[in-house]
Amino acid sequence: MTGMFATRVSVEQIEEGYELAPKFDADGLIPVVTTSAKSGEVLMLGYMNEEALKLTIQTGEAHYYSRSREQLWRKGASSGLLQKVTEIRIDDDQDAVWIAVEIDGPYGEASCHVGYRSCFYRSLEVGQGDDEPAKLKFEEHELVFDPKEVYGDAPNPTKI
Amino acid sequence: MTGMFATRVSVEQIEEGYELAPKFDADGLIPVVTTSAKSGEVLMLGYMNEEALKLTIQTGEAHYYSRSREQLWRKGASSGLLQKVTEIRIDDDQDAVWIAVEIDGPYGEASCHVGYRSCFYRSLEVGQGDDEPAKLKFEEHELVFDPKEVYGDAPNPTKI
Repeated sequence: MTGMFATRVSVEQIEEGYELAPKFDADGLIPVVTTSAKSGEVLMLGYMNEEALKLTIQTGEAHYYSRSREQLWRKGASSGLLQKVTEIRIDDDQDAVWIAVEIDGPYGEASCHVGYRSCFYRSLEVGQGDDEPAKLKFEEHELVFDPKEVYGDAPNPTKI
Repeated sequence: MTGMFATRVSVEQIEEGYELAPKFDADGLIPVVTTSAKSGEVLMLGYMNEEALKLTIQTGEAHYYSRSREQLWRKGASSGLLQKVTEIRIDDDQDAVWIAVEIDGPYGEASCHVGYRSCFYRSLEVGQGDDEPAKLKFEEHELVFDPKEVYGDAPNPTKI
């Protein structure tokens, strides 16, 4: 046991118990689904390490672990797009987290580094064949903020 | 390029393009958030390999990769809790998928192997300290199906 995380001892404890006993993967991370507390929309999928999960629970501000920058990431520290956590949930086997957040920035609910509201701004149609790349469709049509203005010359976290 | 997946060539193509160019991790997997098309609730967080993502797009039925069974997993094949996909989204850097699903099984929206509706049936309060395990609270109070009846003697996928 390390502070707020219980040691995982049994399937019953993990699935039906009242103690937080999260499972971090080989890289020390747990995936996190972030939804809008207002609309329910999925805003992003991120990762937390032990420190980020503890800080999120203790402070009520979403903290992640940035895999591209390889460091703790207080969401909004550079962009101002802070996420206030209204609810935290853990899944059955405690290897995934769901948080609902409110964002009180100058750009409304913006949470995507590209400048869209949700990171999931493109859809694809069900029923496409395997003979050519599946076609994407934009579900958001305008940036809600200018990434250059918000992030300046910070490197783009997207890796090829 | 392999069929419906384009080769990843640039940040602009990945973030602002119209081709599906997903990034699978070192294990060949991509994480998937599954929400209820009806309520918007997050039902589960799973993983797909290339085959599962292709089959999901082609057939409109959610397919995952089961990490515990180490095989392709057509959701509902053993339980009957099939997921009909109403929408598929991909995120900015194309390393996460969001699907919205309808479940027409005998147990309503059930999708959790423990017997609850959502896998995220427990919450934890923001503001807890680090001196003892964080306390969980059940947000669902009754099983919507009997796992023994549905899964029989199949091994529990939860790993300690």
